[in-house]
Amino acid sequence: MTKEEFRAMEAYMSACMAEGAHDGEHVYRVLYLALDIAGTEPEADLDTVIAAALLHDVGRSAQLRDQTLDHALVGADMAEAFLRERGYDEAFLRHVGDCIRSHRFRRARPPKTVEAKILFDADKLDVCGATGIARTLQYGGSLGCPLYHRDGNGRISDGREGHDGRIDAASVSFFQEYHFKLARLCERLLTRRGRELAEARQQAARAFYEALLAEVRSPEEAGKAALDTLLS
Amino acid sequence: MTKEEFRAMEAYMSACMAEGAHDGEHVYRVLYLALDIAGTEPEADLDTVIAAALLHDVGRSAQLRDQTLDHALVGADMAEAFLRERGYDEAFLRHVGDCIRSHRFRRARPPKTVEAKILFDADKLDVCGATGIARTLQYGGSLGCPLYHRDGNGRISDGREGHDGRIDAASVSFFQEYHFKLARLCERLLTRRGRELAEARQQAARAFYEALLAEVRSPEEAGKAALDTLLS
Repeated sequence: MTKEEFRAMEAYMSACMAEGAHDGEHVYRVLYLALDIAGTEPEADLDTVIAAALLHDVGRSAQLRDQTLDHALVGADMAEAFLRERGYDEAFLRHVGDCIRSHRFRRARPPKTVEAKILFDADKLDVCGATGIARTLQYGGSLGCPLYHRDGNGRISDGREGHDGRIDAASVSFFQEYHFKLARLCERLLTRRGRELAEARQQAARAFYEALLAEVRSPEEAGKAALDTLLS
Repeated sequence: MTKEEFRAMEAYMSACMAEGAHDGEHVYRVLYLALDIAGTEPEADLDTVIAAALLHDVGRSAQLRDQTLDHALVGADMAEAFLRERGYDEAFLRHVGDCIRSHRFRRARPPKTVEAKILFDADKLDVCGATGIARTLQYGGSLGCPLYHRDGNGRISDGREGHDGRIDAASVSFFQEYHFKLARLCERLLTRRGRELAEARQQAARAFYEALLAEVRSPEEAGKAALDTLLS
């Protein structure tokens, strides 16, 4: 790939980004993580990896406008059309499109090629570790999600209790998101290097979750006991 | 204080909370932290500490409706009126009011009594450590703040660069908030126990910040170098 081709894809990606800089930063993090993983997969085609990483979220705005759309499917079609218009050959652009289609919903559309697996892992790695914690808290904050719920006894729940889809997005607690999404990501990665990076990152995520749980629970347990004695 | 008096203050606090459960959880965390600190300050009047902690943010909704108001001043007046109506003596309710007035803006209205210092520290402790990180990210997410900015060379800034009030709230990055607010809180606390708790918490905050910075910077530095070689 030439520098000019890269810049053209970058410009198209930027023009497609709904929320500007934030989504763009995710795309660059995924691109660099994909290059890291690709460095350990000698058979990977780097041009496909680069194009797929740069263009994997171009369908985000369309999904934002119409929630019934799947940004992976829309974005794959958009990326293919963009590359076709710029004269790339069909085999290349379809391969890029297939990587983008399978970066979401692994069960229905599992990534098949090494390039698709690299994109899948790079995208998931950006929800691992401290980055995953930060993005989850920012997103939860934008929806008004709480840090934690309380169980039937009024005790702060650690988030392991049910989160079976019946709870709407705005009431899912951060502790639930940690257990039902973040903590399980490692197991789902498809490349050796992806799993290695995920495991290192998960230590930071786990340490943060445990520190937060202790910070909110410990003073409360002692404080409730103190209040029981103090209040007549 | 009787259980009934406590319940009445709790009910008034809940009724005053603008955003419901979230603000309420902050109040309980502050209450339990204040009781922890009060346990190491034998001269502290516990009824004053409990009332001040429970009522310290009752002015939040008023400030939310009118940004020119200071919730510490409005809330102190509201708390005093509430306590006066319920027959508390003037010395007690004014002391509670003074604690609430000085829980914000230490330079203009420094906390003078041990009870006021306890409330100040308990409130600040809830912005220390993992809790402070989580609340800052949630709040930043609700405003659309980025995790980081880039410096003139396109490198991810660690947040130490200028944050001198010229930047509006929606463009302050999380890394800047960490350096200019969270990392400095420890030094500002007024009680021995408050500082002890803050220092323990700051380790979790620092570890998280460092992990996040490494996660976003390391793959990018390697990836940029790789791209330089790959792109013709």
